[in-house]
Amino acid sequence: MELQGKMLIGQQAVQGSRQAIRAINPSTNEHLEPAYPGGTEEDVAKACELAWGAFDSYRETTLEARAQFLETVADEIEALGDTLIARAVLESGLPQQRIQGERGRTCNQLRLFARTVRNGEWLDVRIDPALPDRQPMPRADLRQRHIALGPVAVFGASNFPLAFSVAGGDTASALAAGCPVIVKAHSAHPGTSELVGRAIQSAVDRCGLPEGVFSLVFDSGLDVGQALVAHPCIKAAGFTGSRSGGLALNRIAQSRPEPIPFYAEMSSINPVFALPAALESRGEKMGEEFVASLNMGAGQFCTNPGLVIAIKGQGLDSFVRAASRAVSDSAAQTMLTPGIHQAYNEGVQTLVSDNGAQELAHGREGADPNQCQTNLFVTSASHFLEEQTLQEEVFGATSLIVECQDEAELHRVAECLEGQLTATLQMDEADTGMAQSLLPVLERRAGRLLVNGWPTGVEVCDAMVHGGPFPATSDSRTTSVGTAAIFRFLRPVCYQNLPGALLPEALRDNNPLSLKRLVNGERES
Amino acid sequence: MELQGKMLIGQQAVQGSRQAIRAINPSTNEHLEPAYPGGTEEDVAKACELAWGAFDSYRETTLEARAQFLETVADEIEALGDTLIARAVLESGLPQQRIQGERGRTCNQLRLFARTVRNGEWLDVRIDPALPDRQPMPRADLRQRHIALGPVAVFGASNFPLAFSVAGGDTASALAAGCPVIVKAHSAHPGTSELVGRAIQSAVDRCGLPEGVFSLVFDSGLDVGQALVAHPCIKAAGFTGSRSGGLALNRIAQSRPEPIPFYAEMSSINPVFALPAALESRGEKMGEEFVASLNMGAGQFCTNPGLVIAIKGQGLDSFVRAASRAVSDSAAQTMLTPGIHQAYNEGVQTLVSDNGAQELAHGREGADPNQCQTNLFVTSASHFLEEQTLQEEVFGATSLIVECQDEAELHRVAECLEGQLTATLQMDEADTGMAQSLLPVLERRAGRLLVNGWPTGVEVCDAMVHGGPFPATSDSRTTSVGTAAIFRFLRPVCYQNLPGALLPEALRDNNPLSLKRLVNGERES
Repeated sequence: MELQGKMLIGQQAVQGSRQAIRAINPSTNEHLEPAYPGGTEEDVAKACELAWGAFDSYRETTLEARAQFLETVADEIEALGDTLIARAVLESGLPQQRIQGERGRTCNQLRLFARTVRNGEWLDVRIDPALPDRQPMPRADLRQRHIALGPVAVFGASNFPLAFSVAGGDTASALAAGCPVIVKAHSAHPGTSELVGRAIQSAVDRCGLPEGVFSLVFDSGLDVGQALVAHPCIKAAGFTGSRSGGLALNRIAQSRPEPIPFYAEMSSINPVFALPAALESRGEKMGEEFVASLNMGAGQFCTNPGLVIAIKGQGLDSFVRAASRAVSDSAAQTMLTPGIHQAYNEGVQTLVSDNGAQELAHGREGADPNQCQTNLFVTSASHFLEEQTLQEEVFGATSLIVECQDEAELHRVAECLEGQLTATLQMDEADTGMAQSLLPVLERRAGRLLVNGWPTGVEVCDAMVHGGPFPATSDSRTTSVGTAAIFRFLRPVCYQNLPGALLPEALRDNNPLSLKRLVNGERES
Repeated sequence: MELQGKMLIGQQAVQGSRQAIRAINPSTNEHLEPAYPGGTEEDVAKACELAWGAFDSYRETTLEARAQFLETVADEIEALGDTLIARAVLESGLPQQRIQGERGRTCNQLRLFARTVRNGEWLDVRIDPALPDRQPMPRADLRQRHIALGPVAVFGASNFPLAFSVAGGDTASALAAGCPVIVKAHSAHPGTSELVGRAIQSAVDRCGLPEGVFSLVFDSGLDVGQALVAHPCIKAAGFTGSRSGGLALNRIAQSRPEPIPFYAEMSSINPVFALPAALESRGEKMGEEFVASLNMGAGQFCTNPGLVIAIKGQGLDSFVRAASRAVSDSAAQTMLTPGIHQAYNEGVQTLVSDNGAQELAHGREGADPNQCQTNLFVTSASHFLEEQTLQEEVFGATSLIVECQDEAELHRVAECLEGQLTATLQMDEADTGMAQSLLPVLERRAGRLLVNGWPTGVEVCDAMVHGGPFPATSDSRTTSVGTAAIFRFLRPVCYQNLPGALLPEALRDNNPLSLKRLVNGERES
């Protein structure tokens, strides 16, 4: 399949007319063909109007038709075969095996949402039948279901060119909810975006859906993304990226004449609490495992363990020795883009020049462009508590160990943490009491709590929460990974005394969708 | 029970030190004793810190304990007896029967949330057990539940001194979710607020809960409310009131260092589409019913029918004649406060001075203070489509009829409407086609759709949606009435590989709460 360098607006391929983005192979700094000229506000408006035109029809597709569409998208992505893998590897610098795994995850995610759509629980049907004889007032017939919010803008992320991009989690959950999607491609991987976008375009066509269900736009700057979030036809947006980018777009979303939900996943340093008994019994092994997690994907994971918090002692000393050794042995890794590489180096420099933090170790130097060295620093809890900037995410394989004098100080550090995607306890049974006292604090601060694991690696399943209090995300009431993400793009509507002919299928007396509905306060079985 | 004129901060009664609010009997313009001096920022901070201190303990009360607490609040409110009724009548000018009904609704609402809490579905438990042998990667044990967001600020509304005030819907749903609540009393009914606040205070004590679970603060101005929304311990807020007030507080909520969910129910004119066959067959009766709905509570309902949209013809003529007659016969009614009465008269004057709208009828003049006359206006669809200000809510018993030339114009009017709490179809069977084509438009614009009813009267039940797209509310993903409101104050948390001793009860293998959990994608029965 020949890449065309064009945007996909409905079923058209549209040549942009503004400054082009050109992907860079980060392993070589070579520019990749073709160029992707950026879109205009008119292109955005065209995509939005198509999406709006498709909305009423798409949101009322049957559960089966919508599920089949999601499965067809997965099939079409798989049908791209090695072309997709090769391009994503070129554009991201990520290893082929990782990209293959990510493709599997992306397609599984689409199929999991197909299952979720078919199941229909997300409709949250509630029926309170009329009580005409109730005293002192009769009750009307009241029925509730969820409907889609409207067309959704999705911003592709740099670090998962498949799983958090054109057909990633936000797109899958929005399409599952019945929302048309317009994706603003990430400039780091336009070719990958075009390939996946054409797979979705093809699925829209094969499933006989209105073309406005999906569009893909490009821009070398900020205008297209900002116009998208500001467009009156867009009713929600999903974003994964930097804190500054997320906050800027959120401001646009909130200052519209009609504000919209804006789901930004922004920054998290994913604290790991290494508790005393665990450090004592397996500090060395823990140090090695920690660095393996830190190095995954060159540390370019939202769930990268950027902070280790522990009480001083021999166990922590073993941990620090083993971790420092593993960091020193860490090979340099190619980062996703020259810009990310530069920002990483600047972030590391900020830590190097912090008088209250000491460098423990750094990894091997790279010979190729855009390679990062793993870095490990240590600081005292008292310094960490004073210096808010130490909580700023450095996107990449760097981490900071915070040494506490005692349990009370460890609690103070826990209480001062900003909102996080994850918080981890490394513990042995003898640490249970300390873990119990930390859990309520960590529940208030993170979307996912782990015991004796490492935060990298986010399972796509029903129980996952990839979210958390601000600034981890802009909205802690939701998740961007897992089937519960469908609720981000829905709202409840109540129908009072509608005749059967006007009632949506899900709400009819004969329950044609065989849903387990809440009727008169009782769940149907 | 002697009113003390004091704020309730935890279990203390605290004398305010700033300018006092003094309730006015709107029927006489007399000031009522006692004065309620306003609180300071320090009072707010004290209440917030108590709430924060109570949060971890209160959110982990057992389902049974929390349900009993809600029921105890209801019992304590009922135990206030006629004292409460008399004071609420004095402060609101509303008839005694209405206040008695509202008390019943308020207590039923608390008991309905008790049932919801006990049931536990709101925990939305999802369990994906470990798959250690899965290829290519094992799956960890992942379990999800919902937890409370944190302390919630609730703003009492003027128009429901019981049901949308100190122990109203927002308080009930937040307490049900496990959130401590701090209420900012509405200045129109401080005595009613004190009585209900003391009922909650007493329930907190009887149930042995930490005192920070509830506080009540007063202010004659805006400072206390603003300080409350800005306080870092407050994690969400609920508001029912004017669009300007809601938007101002929402700006504070969104510009905090840590933005918080802000649920404002603000303005709605609740369009009624009177379709041709229905007008033809029962235009006169419909006109009378419409005015009965318009006059309920002196029109001071969020769901008051402020707009009637219909196609010109004899049916509409009958409707207009009957409605005009009923309006002319309407007795003057006392409004809630002198300020609301003045704002109503100004809103009516704006319509009177609009050259594109004509007055059809007005009700009888009142002899007593603060009495409003019912008003009815008519305009053309073409003028309505041009003049956005005609969509502004006039809080009170005034309504505007929009005459359309044909069905196409009626659709254009429907498409131009702002977000609404409700939209109503008055229809006969012969109108079914037109109703079907309007339904998708109205679903996009309103939280509740009614057929052949009137929007006033909001049932408290599982299926109710009292919400809708902006500007009806600031967040269409939710409802402020009905049991689904509990989700406003919750967020999901995922637990990965937690040993049994650390797992919350709801997530344990032996399912001690007997919940119907989603396990491996299947709902337990």
